[in-house]
This record gives sequence, C-alpha cells and structure tokens, in this order.
Amino acid sequence: MAIVKELGTRRVFMGKLAHGADLLEEITTICVDNKIKLGRIEGLGAVKKSCLGFYSQDTKEYQYLTLDKNMEISNLVGNVSLKDGVPIVHAHITLSDEQGCAYGGHLAPGTIIFACEILVHELDGPEFRRGTDQVTGLPLWELQK
Amino acid sequence: MAIVKELGTRRVFMGKLAHGADLLEEITTICVDNKIKLGRIEGLGAVKKSCLGFYSQDTKEYQYLTLDKNMEISNLVGNVSLKDGVPIVHAHITLSDEQGCAYGGHLAPGTIIFACEILVHELDGPEFRRGTDQVTGLPLWELQK
Amino acid sequence: MAIVKELGTRRVFMGKLAHGADLLEEITTICVDNKIKLGRIEGLGAVKKSCLGFYSQDTKEYQYLTLDKNMEISNLVGNVSLKDGVPIVHAHITLSDEQGCAYGGHLAPGTIIFACEILVHELDGPEFRRGTDQVTGLPLWELQK
Repeated sequence: MAIVKELGTRRVFMGKLAHGADLLEEITTICVDNKIKLGRIEGLGAVKKSCLGFYSQDTKEYQYLTLDKNMEISNLVGNVSLKDGVPIVHAHITLSDEQGCAYGGHLAPGTIIFACEILVHELDGPEFRRGTDQVTGLPLWELQK
Repeated sequence: MAIVKELGTRRVFMGKLAHGADLLEEITTICVDNKIKLGRIEGLGAVKKSCLGFYSQDTKEYQYLTLDKNMEISNLVGNVSLKDGVPIVHAHITLSDEQGCAYGGHLAPGTIIFACEILVHELDGPEFRRGTDQVTGLPLWELQK
Repeated sequence: MAIVKELGTRRVFMGKLAHGADLLEEITTICVDNKIKLGRIEGLGAVKKSCLGFYSQDTKEYQYLTLDKNMEISNLVGNVSLKDGVPIVHAHITLSDEQGCAYGGHLAPGTIIFACEILVHELDGPEFRRGTDQVTGLPLWELQK
C-alpha cells in the first residue's frame, strides 16, 4: 500500500544552470546552498552528453549507459530528500536526439549541461530519509504509516 | 479556443507506492482515500511491466500495448478530476529500457510497480467532470466558458 | 554556476485546449490573455501531427522535424517568461506512437492538438527576460547573480 505524507509548500526557485557543468551536481548544489531538504524538481534544456542509469531489478545493481551525443532534455523530473543527513537529488531524465528519438533513465553523474532551465519547489513536512529498501535494494524513503 | 479555470492550491501529498501493486490503482487509491477531487500528479520510478494505451484518432478507440519487461519510469504526469462523481486519474507515462530507449503512452491498468515516488498536488475550484466529447470520442472535461 | 531566483506562487490555471489548434499558440494565448509573465507549464494529451525542434549545438541553429502522424503527448513541460516585453512560452514535448515508441524535442509551431490538458502555474518575482546568450546562441534568461 502507498505511504504518502501531507506536506506544505515553501519556497520556489527557478533559473538556469551553468553551461558545461554536471547536471546532477548543479541541481544538488542549488538544494544544498539553499538548505532545501525536501522538494520537487522539474526542468528542460539540452545536454552535450549524458549518463543514464538503469536499475537491474534482477541483479539489484545500476547499469550505466553513456550517450556521447548532443541531445535535448525533453523532460527532467525529480525530488530532493535526505540521505545520511544531506540533501540528495533523485531525478529521471528524458532526452531526444537529432532524429527526434527519445531516450530515458535515471540521471547519473556525467550528464553535461548545454543549457538547462530548472525549477525546485521546496516542500515542508516530516523528514524524508533514504535508506536501503530490502525488497528492491533501492535507497527508498523510510516512511512509516 | 482553450477553456481554463483559475484554481487555488490545497494539500500536497508525496510518498512512495507499493512494490508489486498496479500503478494506476495505487494513485487512484491515494486520491480516493484523501478525498482529492481535483489535482495534478507527477512521478518517477520503475515498473516490472507496463500497459500503455494509444488512442486511435481514426477508430476513436484505445489500443493497448503490453510491454513485458522491466523499465524505468522516466516520467509520469497526470491529473485527477471527477467521472460519474468519483475521482478518476488520467496519466501519461514515459518509460525507458536497458538500452535507454524510451516508450510512452496513456497509463493503463496492468502497469506493475517496482518502485515509484509520487506527488499529488490538490487543487481547488469548480468541479472538473469528465463526459464524452463528441469530436474526439474522449472523456474530456465538460468545462464551460 | 547556476543562477536561480526565489519566487512566489500565484494563480493556477488548468483546463483543456482546442481540438485542431496549434499547441504552442494555444498555450501562449492562455498566458497573454491572463497576463501571465512568469510561470511553469505542464500537460498531457494527443496530437494530430507535430513539429519538433532540435538545437544544433555546433551550428547554433534549430533544425525542425515534422512528424506527420497521430501521437500521444506523453509529457509536456515548459515555462513562460518575457521576450521583447511579451510572454513567451518555452516548452519541450515527449510524444509516443502506436507502437509505444517515444520521440521528443523543443515544441515548435505546427504541432496540432487532438486533445490536451494543460496546467499553467503563475510565479511571482523579478522579470525573467530572454536575450541572446553568447555562449550557446540560445535566447536564455538574462539573470544576474
């Protein structure tokens, strides 16, 4: 059964990320610098290259795929919560190439920004802490009913 | 011409869905249990298998495609409104496989959660009721100017 | 380094777009009619045909791809800000065809709506003005630290 918490809304940050920087790192820095411990994230833009994670549900390990070509960020969706006491960004990305073909996956380090417009909406409520989930092996939220 | 209504924002719910459950059913249950009649939905995660709807604009019928493989949920976007007096979730999903290839469509029953992080933002305003639209054959909102 | 601004949230508009109209034009009209100068946009639906932009990072010019087939809008994400003093919508779209294959890119004029449900969340803050960015050649936000 789903476990959801009722949250309040707080600050909204919107802006642009640095050309040539690492996408995941840039978003994480916004959260750390602004002391955002909980929130939702969205974005669009373009990347020079990307690194996508795919979680193998069998081996319970991430596999990483590097796509060394320029692509549009068709969509970026994610959240920020806490892991080991510090803000951690979890985001998934959809990309598209020159022929319009779309790719997607877990946003991993190594995805380099060409241009990116981002929004982070801070949320307010109980701490959302990530810890290893026994069933999936993923760092899921340790939420109690 | 577009018909939009100005709405207020109400409660935000964020959390995780149950491993092994039906994705559409889980989101619907959150809305029903919390008496959410209007809202926006977003999510990311992974599925064990999926069922995607594609609406044939010619025959005016949904065709369903079952993808029997583990995939990442690159993006989930949707809304909740009312149909026959009860909350109904309308969502579209983008998925990606081990090679990073992306798939997408209308989220149909039969999409089984591996892990999913979801946000439902309740909205406040006039009732958004779905009824059959004559032009498209779809259950669109019966909004008046 | 990222440049983000802290913004307030204002009005939310949700509704449906006109069958047969141009998708980018319809969203822009909502923003102009309601005097929305800053905001975030999301949507889902279906198109009769589409026109996707891909920005060549080498030539610094957009290339356009017309996909002349019915597709689902798996996701639409974007924002509204100002260019030359008037509201301009910047959106990226993910589409999917009858086989579930996904496509994506910069939403360009020529994308024709079959049905579309849209949300525009107005934001409040300093003006976000677009001007030509020297490094990328794109009309990015001229934000100061």
